Amino acid sequence: MAGLRGPKATDTPTVERSPRTERGRKTRRTLLDAAAVEFGERGFHDSSIVGITQRAGVALGSFYTYFESKEALFRALVADMSARVGDVGAAAAGGIDDVLEREQAVTSAFIAFATEHKELYRIIDEAEFVDPATWRAHYENAAGRIAARLRTGAGNNQVRSDVGEVEAWALMGMNVFLGLRFGVWGGDVGPEEIGRRVAALLREGLAR
Amino acid sequence: MAGLRGPKATDTPTVERSPRTERGRKTRRTLLDAAAVEFGERGFHDSSIVGITQRAGVALGSFYTYFESKEALFRALVADMSARVGDVGAAAAGGIDDVLEREQAVTSAFIAFATEHKELYRIIDEAEFVDPATWRAHYENAAGRIAARLRTGAGNNQVRSDVGEVEAWALMGMNVFLGLRFGVWGGDVGPEEIGRRVAALLREGLAR
Repeated sequence: MAGLRGPKATDTPTVERSPRTERGRKTRRTLLDAAAVEFGERGFHDSSIVGITQRAGVALGSFYTYFESKEALFRALVADMSARVGDVGAAAAGGIDDVLEREQAVTSAFIAFATEHKELYRIIDEAEFVDPATWRAHYENAAGRIAARLRTGAGNNQVRSDVGEVEAWALMGMNVFLGLRFGVWGGDVGPEEIGRRVAALLREGLAR
Repeated sequence: MAGLRGPKATDTPTVERSPRTERGRKTRRTLLDAAAVEFGERGFHDSSIVGITQRAGVALGSFYTYFESKEALFRALVADMSARVGDVGAAAAGGIDDVLEREQAVTSAFIAFATEHKELYRIIDEAEFVDPATWRAHYENAAGRIAARLRTGAGNNQVRSDVGEVEAWALMGMNVFLGLRFGVWGGDVGPEEIGRRVAALLREGLAR
C-alpha cells in the first residue's frame, strides 16, 4: 500500500484499472456503490477514500488496486451512472416500434430510476465542477441516444422528418427536470403518469 | 471595518443590507456584477471578497456595508440572477395574447440571455452545493411562472385544460437544456430558431 500511495504512484498510468477476475469486478462494483452513497450524501470534497472503503467493507489498501485516487473513483462513478442511465433507457425502449411509445417508456423508466437513485443528480451535477469533461460527455451521449431514436422514428414516418438535435435536447431537458421534481424531490405524480404526459406533449402538443 | 469584521459582526443580522441611497444601490449593483464574473470564472470556493472588490473598483472595507460574507453575496447573486431571468421572460411575454406565441418569445429571450451571460449556468448550478435552498427556489419560482402562463392559456381555451405542473417542469427543462447547449456552449442554431422549434413542439408535437 505504501508503495502505491507513495512516490511510485506517479509512475502508474492515469487510466482506470480494470480488474481481470470476477472477484475483482465484484469488489470494484462494491466500491462504486459505496462511492455513490458517500458522494451522494457528503459531496465530493467531504467524502474520503477511508469512508468509502469502510462503507464498502473493503480494505483501504485494496482501494488502489482499483482506482488511483478519489478523483479517479468519482470520474469512474459518473461514467458508470451515465452508462446505467443509458442501459435503463435501452432496456425500456427495447422491442417498441413506435417512436413516441418508445420515448414514453424511456421517460417512465428514467423517472423511476431517479426515484430509486436519488443520489444520481447530486453526483452528476457535482461533476460539472469536479470533472467537467465527463459531465459534458454524459449529456452529449444522452442527447445523442435520443436524437438517434428520433431519427429512426423519422425514417419510419412516425415523426416529422426535421427532428434533430434541438428536439433531442428539449426532450432530455424535460426528462432531467421531471426526474428532479417528481423523482428526486418526490411528489404525487408517478413515473407512469409522467411518461404518459410527456408522450401526449410529444404526440400532439398542448393544443386543445 | 475592523468593527464590522470583528466580533461585533455576530451582532449584525444575517439579512441582506439594502442600501438606502442611489449611490449605495449602484455600488451594490457593481459588486453583484463583479461577483458574477468572479464566481463564473473561478467558482465559489476559489473566489474571494478581495478579488471581487478589486474587480468592482470598490474599497474592501465598503464590502461589508453591502454583504456580510462571501456566502451572503453569493446568495444575493443567485437571487438576483433568478430575478433577472424572470424579468427577461416577463418582458418577452408582455403584450402577447396567445400562450404558445408567448412561450416562443420567452424561450428565445432566455436562450439569448444565456448566450450573453454564459456565467449564469455555472453560478446557478453551483448554488445546488453552496446554497441549496436558493437553488431550489430558483427552479420552483421559474416553473411556477410557466405554470401560471399555461393556466392563463388554458383559461382562454388556447391549450388543453389539464396542463399543469408536469408540463411547466417539462417546458422549463427544455429551456434550461437548450440554453446550455445552444446558448452557453454555443452553436449554429440561434435563439429565434430555437424558440420556433420549441413552439412547434408545444403547438403540434413531433407528429408528421
